[in-house]
Amino acid sequence: MSRDAALAELQALLGPRLSRSAGDLADHGRNETWFAPMPPDAVAFPETTAEVSALVAICARHGLPVIGWGTGTSLEGHAIALHGGVSADFSRMNRVIEVRPGDLQAVVQPGLTREGLNTELRATGLMFPIDPGANASLGGMAATRASGTTAVRYGTMRDNVMALEVVLADGRVIRTGSGARKSASGYDLTGLFVGSEGTLGLITELTLKLHGQPEAITAAVCAFDTFEAAVDTVMATIQMGIPMARIEFVDETTAAIFNAQNGTRLPEKPHLMVEFHGSATSAAEDAQRFGEVVADMGGAHFDWATTVEDRNRLWKMRHGAYPACIASRPGCMGLVTDICVPMSQLAKAVAETRADIAASGLPGPILGHVGDGNFHAILLVERGNDDELKTAKALARRMAERALGLGGTMTGEHGVGMGKKDLMAMEHGEAWEVMARIKRALDPDGILNPGKLVEVAQ
Amino acid sequence: MSRDAALAELQALLGPRLSRSAGDLADHGRNETWFAPMPPDAVAFPETTAEVSALVAICARHGLPVIGWGTGTSLEGHAIALHGGVSADFSRMNRVIEVRPGDLQAVVQPGLTREGLNTELRATGLMFPIDPGANASLGGMAATRASGTTAVRYGTMRDNVMALEVVLADGRVIRTGSGARKSASGYDLTGLFVGSEGTLGLITELTLKLHGQPEAITAAVCAFDTFEAAVDTVMATIQMGIPMARIEFVDETTAAIFNAQNGTRLPEKPHLMVEFHGSATSAAEDAQRFGEVVADMGGAHFDWATTVEDRNRLWKMRHGAYPACIASRPGCMGLVTDICVPMSQLAKAVAETRADIAASGLPGPILGHVGDGNFHAILLVERGNDDELKTAKALARRMAERALGLGGTMTGEHGVGMGKKDLMAMEHGEAWEVMARIKRALDPDGILNPGKLVEVAQ
Ligand SMILES: Cc1cc2nc3c(=O)[nH]c(=O)nc-3n(C[C@H](O)[C@H](O)[C@H](O)COP(=O)(O)OP(=O)(O)OC[C@H]3O[C@@H](n4cnc5c(N)ncnc54)[C@H](O)[C@@H]3O)c2cc1C
Ligand SMILES: Cc1cc2nc3c(=O)[nH]c(=O)nc-3n(C[C@H](O)[C@H](O)[C@H](O)COP(=O)(O)OP(=O)(O)OC[C@H]3O[C@@H](n4cnc5c(N)ncnc54)[C@H](O)[C@@H]3O)c2cc1C
Repeated sequence: MSRDAALAELQALLGPRLSRSAGDLADHGRNETWFAPMPPDAVAFPETTAEVSALVAICARHGLPVIGWGTGTSLEGHAIALHGGVSADFSRMNRVIEVRPGDLQAVVQPGLTREGLNTELRATGLMFPIDPGANASLGGMAATRASGTTAVRYGTMRDNVMALEVVLADGRVIRTGSGARKSASGYDLTGLFVGSEGTLGLITELTLKLHGQPEAITAAVCAFDTFEAAVDTVMATIQMGIPMARIEFVDETTAAIFNAQNGTRLPEKPHLMVEFHGSATSAAEDAQRFGEVVADMGGAHFDWATTVEDRNRLWKMRHGAYPACIASRPGCMGLVTDICVPMSQLAKAVAETRADIAASGLPGPILGHVGDGNFHAILLVERGNDDELKTAKALARRMAERALGLGGTMTGEHGVGMGKKDLMAMEHGEAWEVMARIKRALDPDGILNPGKLVEVAQ
Repeated sequence: MSRDAALAELQALLGPRLSRSAGDLADHGRNETWFAPMPPDAVAFPETTAEVSALVAICARHGLPVIGWGTGTSLEGHAIALHGGVSADFSRMNRVIEVRPGDLQAVVQPGLTREGLNTELRATGLMFPIDPGANASLGGMAATRASGTTAVRYGTMRDNVMALEVVLADGRVIRTGSGARKSASGYDLTGLFVGSEGTLGLITELTLKLHGQPEAITAAVCAFDTFEAAVDTVMATIQMGIPMARIEFVDETTAAIFNAQNGTRLPEKPHLMVEFHGSATSAAEDAQRFGEVVADMGGAHFDWATTVEDRNRLWKMRHGAYPACIASRPGCMGLVTDICVPMSQLAKAVAETRADIAASGLPGPILGHVGDGNFHAILLVERGNDDELKTAKALARRMAERALGLGGTMTGEHGVGMGKKDLMAMEHGEAWEVMARIKRALDPDGILNPGKLVEVAQ
């Protein structure tokens, strides 16, 4: 590898849009969790697919790593520069290229954020529903196969990315998928790139599925004496086929943290936060049937968020849970777990996790997208306290083992990155080696986000 | 390759379940369309994953092709033995392994048919909705990424296969996916094998998503003076967000064929056949709103299929369309096209196709799953008439070009097989070569269903 020659060529290509400033390097070496910063050698701010293609071709020639960068909110050190190289920051490729209302589709650049897209869609009556809380980039969300609060109704990025433009490891540009709602035309390359965490190609354009803004929305929060009752409510609601747009669980610790941070007066009990989308009639019917289930399960303190303001406040609080948890223990950082299990195993998974956390002595509020069987414990570790970090890592590993033992996955939505690579063999067995074979076939020199997700001999 | 040595080893492995009878060879060399029969050298009837694994390992050692066989209903010569080899017939691996009502999942063997599964599910209140008309095997449906009449509501096999067990080209067995509703754990191998047409591995077990049997079902058929009015009705229904479970289009030619074959008295006009699933309230509301759209668009002869018998008759007629079309021209065979376009381009795609067929002089009834933008022309070609076959192939090619020009795909659901391989470069450009790289990475010696879907140097 000749780093300096590569950087000189990149500089010639991008001029001032190749930065080696200390600030930019530090910014693109940081991560949301406990990994030590790992800055790249340079940060590129491409503006076109052609520039991304040229950039990758230069890096390929010199064997310099290229790491995609959306907004840097991923939680497993996905975007840090483990082996140095160039961070390709997509923030200048953030346009809506086209909205096609008749097809319920939008074509966008990867640096556009989900809130940015929804702002542009407001007048169209359409929306892009996937909501990971953070205002992440759509390219980053595709790359991590993100989901969040609305996946129970609208699916994940897997279900909402229809087509991609991708720059391959040698700089070639391909298109995957089409504007058709379905296709049986060969291997599902779109699906392969979604969730590949920048290790197989760089996404330079996405065609996304849009959905109609619901005619009516109702939301509510309700408390339960036990988390079992809350989980049983979720199960019963699903079994009855009541279509929820969101159904979020927070435990009593999280409820207490909400009260402290937001001045709310939630009972310090397990809660469900729900939302229904539909026609005026169907949303009301769904909400009413859900109310009956809650009553059957002994739920109480049922509060409807009837106004838009109430509803926004509710979801703002839910989306603020992660920083609120961090703030609840001064000087701490969060190690966020992310297991997802079959619905029938959810109560067991939560119960065992609660007991395990309690025994560890670490604070670990639990919350999650329980309509999918997905929940997080946010393990709050004192910064610099190696013992606590070790305890937290051991807890996280046991949670992953538990999820696999119950037929689930160790990551429902956050992905693998660096943080969960050592769990991949346990989850996938020989299938992990198949992933490595695909990696080698598409990126033989290993320049795309090396060291993440798969293990290939360098 | 030492064919005889391989067959001797396979005989030792499977005993009488390796057949070289003329009947079995002929059966597994036939196809549903115009390709000349291409029988395999032998037909294997494995009963366990271990046997499939051993079978593939033997074939790998000797370089003998292995071609999966479900029920042989695929329409592009997918399962015929282009280069000889062993047809692995899954009909003896047809058990439901487990139904998990609490998780809305079933684990099945690949040879089970969709009707077989639904029969076993009847008492559970659950169903597997994907419905390609033919009573295909679930392994074959996964391998072709099948869909059919209900995809507009329930998605395709892409959306309803959660996990797989797969025997790789060297005989190793892997598992992909899990019982969790979502996962961000590495490359989406499940999605990669779905639609890979037996060219990357043999599916020996599937975990499928189930859905609740709807509380209420309403169905209807209605006629329009022009196909444009029918298509506009579909568009408007989608835009209003009325959730259809099925919305099928048949043109006036198909309506006339139905009358001749079934003794019905449909007006010889374009029709829509629709179905709504939901609670009693919501299905009624949906049907009523749809009725208003139809009236607005000048639709008439609106017939509700209120009883179960009426409904079954309706869908039996629709599912019988293909044989009915064939029967309508004695001595003919069908060349079935399968384009899928963005909704906004559907009217244009149908109009141009109608004109093109009319100019060709060939009979070519049109029908399709228009809620997805997917439709078929069934080009009726006299057997042995090379001129007609040439005309039909040219028509089919122009349809594919038209679909691509309109932003769609040349196959919405039937797949590539042999029949559409020469269109792959046109649809995918360099991405087709990426598919070939994946093929080589997973099947370096090219023993799995060689000659289909991808092009690799042998
Ligand atoms: C408070 C908080 C809450 C969160 N809640 C959720 C949640 O509920 N659900 C959820 O799924 N996630 C959640 N996340 C995680 C995070 O928001 C997601 O992983 C998100 O998808 C990351 O997007 P990003 O733009 O920040 O990507 P980055 O962090 O910048 O990058 C993520 C990965 O994608 C790659 N990448 C980025 N852009 C491209 C591109 N154009 N082409 C190829 N590769 C690219 C990077 O190399 C990296 O590997 C949360 C994070 C925070 C901080
Ligand atoms: C009248 C009629 C109507 C149809 N309508 C539709 C429709 O509406 N929608 C639709 O999608 N299709 C339709 N089809 C096509 C066909 O039913 C589908 O392609 C179906 O999925 C094929 O399933 P099969 O079991 O018959 O597979 P086969 O034809 O036996 O095999 C299909 C392909 O899958 C491979 N395969 C089979 N089993 C396995 C396995 N276990 N592991 C790996 N590979 C395997 C084979 O090698 C082959 O490449 C129709 C066909 C007919 C005849």
